[in-house]
Amino acid sequence: MILANPPLALLFDVQGTATDFHSTVTSAARRISAGRCPDVDWEGFVDRWRAAYFEATARSGDGSRWRTVQSMYRDALDVLLAEDGIEVFSAAERDELAFSWQQLDPWPDTVPGLARLKSRYTLATLSNADVSAVVNISKHSGLPWDAIFAAEMAGAFKPDPAAYRMAATYLGLQPEQIMMVACHKYDLRAAGALGLGTAFVARPLEFGAGGVVDTTYEDEFEINAADFVDLAEQLGC
Amino acid sequence: MILANPPLALLFDVQGTATDFHSTVTSAARRISAGRCPDVDWEGFVDRWRAAYFEATARSGDGSRWRTVQSMYRDALDVLLAEDGIEVFSAAERDELAFSWQQLDPWPDTVPGLARLKSRYTLATLSNADVSAVVNISKHSGLPWDAIFAAEMAGAFKPDPAAYRMAATYLGLQPEQIMMVACHKYDLRAAGALGLGTAFVARPLEFGAGGVVDTTYEDEFEINAADFVDLAEQLGC
Repeated sequence: MILANPPLALLFDVQGTATDFHSTVTSAARRISAGRCPDVDWEGFVDRWRAAYFEATARSGDGSRWRTVQSMYRDALDVLLAEDGIEVFSAAERDELAFSWQQLDPWPDTVPGLARLKSRYTLATLSNADVSAVVNISKHSGLPWDAIFAAEMAGAFKPDPAAYRMAATYLGLQPEQIMMVACHKYDLRAAGALGLGTAFVARPLEFGAGGVVDTTYEDEFEINAADFVDLAEQLGC
Repeated sequence: MILANPPLALLFDVQGTATDFHSTVTSAARRISAGRCPDVDWEGFVDRWRAAYFEATARSGDGSRWRTVQSMYRDALDVLLAEDGIEVFSAAERDELAFSWQQLDPWPDTVPGLARLKSRYTLATLSNADVSAVVNISKHSGLPWDAIFAAEMAGAFKPDPAAYRMAATYLGLQPEQIMMVACHKYDLRAAGALGLGTAFVARPLEFGAGGVVDTTYEDEFEINAADFVDLAEQLGC
């Protein structure tokens, strides 16, 4: 495929698109719980935890002081553990479990795909996670970004237009010179509305083997890709 | 040497400390002028160009709209060429010459030193150059940063404390967990005043073979290093 107007830079969603939070955080919960609560459905727990984070970011932006995503995850963990009557975790163990969101493993295609794309394009993140979290995730996973941009730098979470505009300003590029890459359609639609190109990457395992995920390709996106290696192929790398 | 409190992250100055602007920009001027003005002292010209940039950043911060460093270099170029009566450059050639500040070559020790340091520390820039310029320089030179921070993100140039505080906030670290690395003592002193560690790297060729540069080691800095490989050695890498 040849795009009429190929981008100069690609912006990547991180949690879900570049990394596999479901298996990483579920594994961390199993490891840290160490058999003390064998009946807990940790897969379902992580999905509820992720949903609580989404709600917290959506509630933000009311003009109050910026709240870190790490504190959102940490606070939501206490709430969810209390809801389920899980009392075995110490404060240090809760901190460790919440920090697993900063140690996310990449999908198998992520690093090979990015390595190919980096030869031709500027690669940056545009994540709702804290800057420090994206740095930690990227160092843990060996993600070779040229730059890290995060909602924190705009004071606004995706899909707020301010987040995408911040990245375009810092890249020194026009929206049409940038392509947003994500497995979440709301993210792509917000980017597309501002004139950015859009690349959908299907992540059928985002919520685990039994999870319900929208992986349908859509004509509204410039690119629909099975993974990052397929994305590199389609972008001529 | 063993530091009492080793840092978790290192912040690097880019123009001068990690890259050799003098030889890069002088070479670009010679190449683009292509023998049309053989009597021009391009080394001296580049030093005056750099001084004009310093003056422009020092004048900023009066509350007016943020001005990109690239526009400062571009505007200063026209002024300096007019001062010297050099009229051979087209607008496109002036743009190309100004863009050479975004294609700076690294010092020979920069990439090997950073590669060693990256195994143990988080490496980020803290540059007065535009974010896009630091991205371009880093991609050109293969500088393996974990994150790019620039004055533009703080709306204030070094040595304004806001620039250093921005980087600390985004890293999620306390000042004493961060070390500033620079060949400019004013930069290190501003960082040190906020509680950051300081590493001086001597760059005797910053202004070329005949340039006057302060390369004296000082007890006030935690580390004094001959280059980035020496810095890596001293930091246990």
